[in-house]
Amino acid sequence: MRAVIPFKKNNAKSRLGALLLEKEREELAIAMLEDVAGALHSSGCFHIVDILSTSIIEVNSANIVLTDKGLNEALNEYLQKMSSHSINEPVLIIMADIPLVSINNIKDIVKSPADIVIAPGRMGGTNAIFIRDPSRFHVDYYGSSFLKHCEIARRNGLTLRIFDSFNLSTDIDEVADLAEILIHGTGHAAQYLKKLGFILAENGGRVGVKREQRTSCLNKNKNV
Amino acid sequence: MRAVIPFKKNNAKSRLGALLLEKEREELAIAMLEDVAGALHSSGCFHIVDILSTSIIEVNSANIVLTDKGLNEALNEYLQKMSSHSINEPVLIIMADIPLVSINNIKDIVKSPADIVIAPGRMGGTNAIFIRDPSRFHVDYYGSSFLKHCEIARRNGLTLRIFDSFNLSTDIDEVADLAEILIHGTGHAAQYLKKLGFILAENGGRVGVKREQRTSCLNKNKNV
Repeated sequence: MRAVIPFKKNNAKSRLGALLLEKEREELAIAMLEDVAGALHSSGCFHIVDILSTSIIEVNSANIVLTDKGLNEALNEYLQKMSSHSINEPVLIIMADIPLVSINNIKDIVKSPADIVIAPGRMGGTNAIFIRDPSRFHVDYYGSSFLKHCEIARRNGLTLRIFDSFNLSTDIDEVADLAEILIHGTGHAAQYLKKLGFILAENGGRVGVKREQRTSCLNKNKNV
Repeated sequence: MRAVIPFKKNNAKSRLGALLLEKEREELAIAMLEDVAGALHSSGCFHIVDILSTSIIEVNSANIVLTDKGLNEALNEYLQKMSSHSINEPVLIIMADIPLVSINNIKDIVKSPADIVIAPGRMGGTNAIFIRDPSRFHVDYYGSSFLKHCEIARRNGLTLRIFDSFNLSTDIDEVADLAEILIHGTGHAAQYLKKLGFILAENGGRVGVKREQRTSCLNKNKNV
């Protein structure tokens, strides 16, 4: 059994640009990737964890497979290569921006006897998909990929299970999503946000995040 | 074992005002409430399902308990009444705006041996909380109620389980949330939105909803 995580570092998470510099967004993206790769590794379910990346990065306990292709093309090529090399082993495709994923989530997904297991993301996304026979499936991300993947499974006569998980549904795209990491996260991404000075902030009964102003060296000197 | 759903019909779901009239928002709120009450009833876990409501409504298979109090005051009074009448039975408090909740979700929550089981909502909310001994807990909603409820459990020496569910985390507050009902819903709320002409709409790779323009009688007559 193997797992694959698609990843794009360059200008990662552009919608977080209001509160994070480009370098910080890339570092947060790597921290979230480390949380996901760590859960896959610690689950003990996979003999290979590949990261399909558009640039060279370093992540513990995962292989980097470079690609210059788009998400769908890169993943479908990956699935086809497995089939053409007669590697008929199950594969879990999992997104890099779901840092709340737990080791038990991973174990539970691959335990399902269904041909296809889909963990929905919010707003119609597919945050993880477990494919028992890669030669009988192809992916179609973007838009309402959840419905598209359900339909591909149906058309190919494959049994389907929907995996109901808040952890897996929580992809980090917008500034508001950072609150989920601060509330529920315990891994690299949560540590990184705290290091940057992010804290929870309530505004009119609703929870958000704000970035604390750090006292700079200059101000400290002035106070002395 | 009993369940209680707090509910407010008047001017319900005001943040959906951009696409729904006040009457439609109230009807959608009732449809979602029916989905939640239906799952509770069909689970067979409860001998009483109470709806703590600020106005008279009619919902199958649930008792209406009228209250003019705010959410926290009404629920804590409910818990205290149970304790003072020596009704030491477990209670599930569940929100009325989570129409994706399934019968299995309900069965799984109450199966947990923990003293307190919390199903988080998005952005720090508490969408369901199972309290094994009502005399040893009080609720504190609004803001980051998830963290507050975890802390109350800890302070009272109660064991705690976090219930990881996308279905339960999906509360319907904003227009964008309506897409979740159309994508994943199968109950009253999904039927009601479809009846109003809501469909999924993709915009720049992201999924949203739009309301189809119905041909009015006037236009039909004009065309004849």
